[in-house]
Amino acid sequence: MCQLLGMNANTPTDVTFSFSGLATRADEHKDGFGIAFFEGCGLRHFVDHHSARHSPLAELVKRYPIKSDNVIAHIRKATQGQVSLENTHPFQRELWGRYWVFAHNGNLVDFNPRLHAAFKPVGQTDSERAFCWLMQELAKAHASVPSIEELSRTLRELVPQLARHGTFNMLLSNGQALWAHNSTHLHYLLRAHPFGRVRLRDEDLSVDFAEHTTVNDRVAVIATEPLTRDEPWVAFTPGQLEVFVGGALRR
Amino acid sequence: MCQLLGMNANTPTDVTFSFSGLATRADEHKDGFGIAFFEGCGLRHFVDHHSARHSPLAELVKRYPIKSDNVIAHIRKATQGQVSLENTHPFQRELWGRYWVFAHNGNLVDFNPRLHAAFKPVGQTDSERAFCWLMQELAKAHASVPSIEELSRTLRELVPQLARHGTFNMLLSNGQALWAHNSTHLHYLLRAHPFGRVRLRDEDLSVDFAEHTTVNDRVAVIATEPLTRDEPWVAFTPGQLEVFVGGALRR
Repeated sequence: MCQLLGMNANTPTDVTFSFSGLATRADEHKDGFGIAFFEGCGLRHFVDHHSARHSPLAELVKRYPIKSDNVIAHIRKATQGQVSLENTHPFQRELWGRYWVFAHNGNLVDFNPRLHAAFKPVGQTDSERAFCWLMQELAKAHASVPSIEELSRTLRELVPQLARHGTFNMLLSNGQALWAHNSTHLHYLLRAHPFGRVRLRDEDLSVDFAEHTTVNDRVAVIATEPLTRDEPWVAFTPGQLEVFVGGALRR
Repeated sequence: MCQLLGMNANTPTDVTFSFSGLATRADEHKDGFGIAFFEGCGLRHFVDHHSARHSPLAELVKRYPIKSDNVIAHIRKATQGQVSLENTHPFQRELWGRYWVFAHNGNLVDFNPRLHAAFKPVGQTDSERAFCWLMQELAKAHASVPSIEELSRTLRELVPQLARHGTFNMLLSNGQALWAHNSTHLHYLLRAHPFGRVRLRDEDLSVDFAEHTTVNDRVAVIATEPLTRDEPWVAFTPGQLEVFVGGALRR
């Protein structure tokens, strides 16, 4: 299974710790990895179709603390589409003068939507087709960039139409908010004051977030499986779609 | 002045040597750098709004020999738009199921085109506006991805409309070909068999391409100023637009 990682924070925050947790799971996921960091509306987007275990890019991400308020990462186990750069998540498009980033875990069966507008897939995956369809339908539903609430409302109408084709665990961000939808496997964690020492589940690595944070910092981490021990990870229920803004759940 | 670097080759080739030459010129160009590598229709896109002299990303690019058939790099000296990630070249969009990459050196004055279609700027630069306008007009001119010859013909109609607003040295690629337009400063070099030892102009660094190439390899390098000594760089004339395919000029 692919691994998803999302981060949404109210202060630019680095994900080197969480990404290390994700990358240790990359042994069975040799089909590429990608990570996208928003800085305001700007975007850094790294993809590699080599394993996150051996990629010099993954090494850079683990060592270079890029501060970001919205991050989406993906480690791929190919289900559809060959192992190549154009099939590596997350995918990126521009809509309404904003970059959008999307990553998907799961498999959509017989999903060949009509893509008649400005968003066409470059690769061959069901995931990129789903992203292009989402962008197309969002563009039809709103003339310019709507509020986060309006976007969430539209996504609650659109996403179930994708999810019924199979498994659709996904992360989506435009740099203002991070949307997460669960079909089968997705968890979130809200970190806030008081911060403490946290240990990764899969690796002998810990970090004391109290040393790196202020009392006002809030960070939401979304991942396929909990990345750390001793923290209150919450499992999404099937069909649950949530939006994270400023490191908190927006409801 | 910003520095442009383009590479088009008939065999995936690394640009570590040329990029080193470009990065040494980054002392006066502290406002960010970016580089995009096509691998087939897949794309790696690195941007940093820190100087290419000090960026860990630039370090990665210099050391990690990413093999690519089309590369566009840019070192920025800001003329319009603040120094931020979203204003860092090269810019990227998708059209007809292909990624397009664009970098610009120069300054367009009072250039505020009507952008009524699917391509909107994320940042504030004249360059990104020019790119969005080009994508919009290409999308209007062709229903799906046309031949390189047809694209060149359309670009020869469109680009002069941009160039008359100021200085428009630019590089554009969709992974199949690389287009280069000159207003004031642009040079190209065609490397082919027999390859020899080459020295960078600005740095005490040389490479023997004969060790790294076969007799069939062809590489075109396009740069604001010649990067090497002892090679037959050709200066573009004002208004000249060329397309490079498979490491050669296509005329």
